[in-house]
This record gives sequence, C-alpha cells and structure tokens, in this order.
Amino acid sequence: MQHGKLITFEGIDGAGKSTHLAWLASFLRDKGLEVIVTREPGGTALGEQLRQLLLDHRQAMHAETEALLMFAARREHLDKVILPALERGAWVVSDRFTDASFAYQGGGRGVPLARLEILEQWVQGNFSPDLTLYFDVPVTISRQRLQSVRTADRFEQEPDPFFERVRQAYLQRASQFPERIRVVDSSLPLAEVKTAVAEIVEEFWSSYAPSR
Amino acid sequence: MQHGKLITFEGIDGAGKSTHLAWLASFLRDKGLEVIVTREPGGTALGEQLRQLLLDHRQAMHAETEALLMFAARREHLDKVILPALERGAWVVSDRFTDASFAYQGGGRGVPLARLEILEQWVQGNFSPDLTLYFDVPVTISRQRLQSVRTADRFEQEPDPFFERVRQAYLQRASQFPERIRVVDSSLPLAEVKTAVAEIVEEFWSSYAPSR
Repeated sequence: MQHGKLITFEGIDGAGKSTHLAWLASFLRDKGLEVIVTREPGGTALGEQLRQLLLDHRQAMHAETEALLMFAARREHLDKVILPALERGAWVVSDRFTDASFAYQGGGRGVPLARLEILEQWVQGNFSPDLTLYFDVPVTISRQRLQSVRTADRFEQEPDPFFERVRQAYLQRASQFPERIRVVDSSLPLAEVKTAVAEIVEEFWSSYAPSR
Repeated sequence: MQHGKLITFEGIDGAGKSTHLAWLASFLRDKGLEVIVTREPGGTALGEQLRQLLLDHRQAMHAETEALLMFAARREHLDKVILPALERGAWVVSDRFTDASFAYQGGGRGVPLARLEILEQWVQGNFSPDLTLYFDVPVTISRQRLQSVRTADRFEQEPDPFFERVRQAYLQRASQFPERIRVVDSSLPLAEVKTAVAEIVEEFWSSYAPSR
C-alpha cells in the first residue's frame, strides 16, 4: 500500500477552516482511506497539555519560549500520531502545522524567520506536508465571525495589527512554497469557498491517489 | 556596580547538591550581594508547570520533545529570572542548567550532542554560566542516598545504566569546559566535600569579587 499523505489547514481563527476540514475528512474516508483528523498545538496527550499552557490568556511568555513549546508539541505529534499514521498508509488532516509557527511566532510575535527555520529543520528534517490549504481572509471579517463566540484565548486577544502580521506571514509563506500551499479566498460566500476547496482536493487526489 | 554572576550546580540526584547550594547562597549573601536561588527545569511559573510535565512518571515523551521542553523552560528562565537579575547586579545560583541537558537528554536519552548544541546556541547564543560545580558520585552511592526518600519521578525511575550514561556525559562536558566546570568528588565525607566546595568558591570569589 502507498504511504499516507499529510494535508494541513492553515489560517487565522474565523477563517472558516473547520467546516472544510470536516468535509475533507469525509471525502477521504469515502475513498476507503483511514483518516486521522488532528490539530496543533495538540494532537497528543502531552501536546494538549502544552496547548492549554500556550492558549491560557493569563500565561505570559517570551515569544521564543512560545516557539520552542510549539515545536516541542510538534515533535511529539510527529512521533506519536503523524508519522506512525503515514507509515501504515493512513491520511492525516491537521488543523495547523509548521506554517502556523512562521505566521504566529514569526509574523505575529516577531521571531526571525531564519531562527524558526532552524527549529523546523531540527524537528522535521526535510519532512513537510504534502498539501496545505491556507484560508485567507481579511482580519476584519475573521473578527466579525469570531465575535462573542467564546472568551478570547491568549492569541485571540491580540489586537488587529497582530493578525495583520500573521496574515502577511502566511501569504509570504504561501508564495515561498507555491506548489504545496494553495491559497483559498475565504472571504467569499461559503458555497464558493467549498467549491474552491473541492477543486484543490480533487486535483490533489487525482495526482496522488493510490493506483489499485 | 558590577554585572552579576551565574553559578550553576550539576549532578545526578543524590549527589548532595542541595546542602552546598544553600551554603553558597549564604556565603554570597554575607558578602552583601543580592542572591537569587533558582532551579531547572523550573524557576518561573511556566517553567514549574513544564517541570511537572517533565517529571511526571506517567508521562511518556520522545527524547527530543523532552530536550525542546527543557530549552523552552530555559528560555523563559533566562528572560524572566536570570538575565534581569544579572543585569541589576544580583548573583544567581541555579540547581542545574544547560549542562544537565547534555547529561540527561544527551548522555541519558541519546539525543546527539551536536543537536543539543544547536538548541543551546538558539536559546543562549554565547551566554553560559560563570562557574559550574559538578558533584560527581558513583551511581550506586547516589542510589543509596535517595532510597525510599520519595516516589521516583520520571527520571529517577530510570535504571542504573541510564545514570551511568548521565554521569559519563557530565564528565565529558567537564573535560570540554575545564575552566568553567569544576568537578567535586561527592563520594567523600560531607565535611571534605564542603571544604572542596568552599575552596572553589573562595577562589572564584577572589578573582571576580567587585572591587570597592
């Protein structure tokens, strides 16, 4: 059997990732695949504990501490969930992965991208997702969508300029890896976004589908 | 006023660090210095939470995850405690620091030392302690001293060969940095160890003491 694939979803909160992530998982399951749906930070017992520390709005920490914790959770995620799944041929769909570190800790918090690349190389070597869908949306729209849904976590409580920087870093990362990262205009009506996602996924599927 | 100094104590549990650490703190306070006594992993609110995760004997984690968490806690420790203290002229005494990562995650768990050096450089740049006392003791003796004191944490429950590797890595590190790391034979009677520690500290003090 063919080795599994890792597909990641990226974007700021309120970009509408969740709906499409659920659709993708069911699309892949309909193809008869084992599908693992996971997220970062998190995805493992330890990772979820780190997620709590990272999102706790009362927790102050240095931007580089934050980056190291994200990559620590990622190392565990790769070891316990992602790599074993891919090895047994399962497809893994993750709500955020390393691009988020470049967007949030890099763009948002100002950790130099070259420093993040060192951690990326340390943790992943040459491993990267097979496909990434980046849901791009202006910050004002994402804010409206998120309003009053819940108490803001440590990231969500950041002001708009923070999310503008996160968005710009995501776009920069997408232009750096145009083959892997596909940008979806998530400000469009849901039905249109859905169509765009389906087209990308169908195209990826037809190029990578196991031939049996 | 002169910039403060960082003095670290290293060694496996049961090597007898605590007694001498308390003595050193009071020696420095008697010189009229502000002294911060701290520890790793830990030393900050976030660091102590990470320490709980790291020492929890029910918590399984990849050796590289462990290394990243240690350096994350260290980044925070430097930012919140160590560097501000040194800048205002305080002396900092820490129960373990980076040498412990080389001993435990390197020697003990087998993370290549060259990989740990990348994290050390990432987190510390060229910063390192001004003086390190490594308390060297055969594993059998440290085991006897620790016996039935408390429930073994995730490190303490490791078998003897693990601690032998930790010890060898500490000794290797000491021979790599002979100027900074002073080896104390901690298998000697307490009074003799105390004398050895006092000699090292007095010598360091006379070479670094603020001239006023």
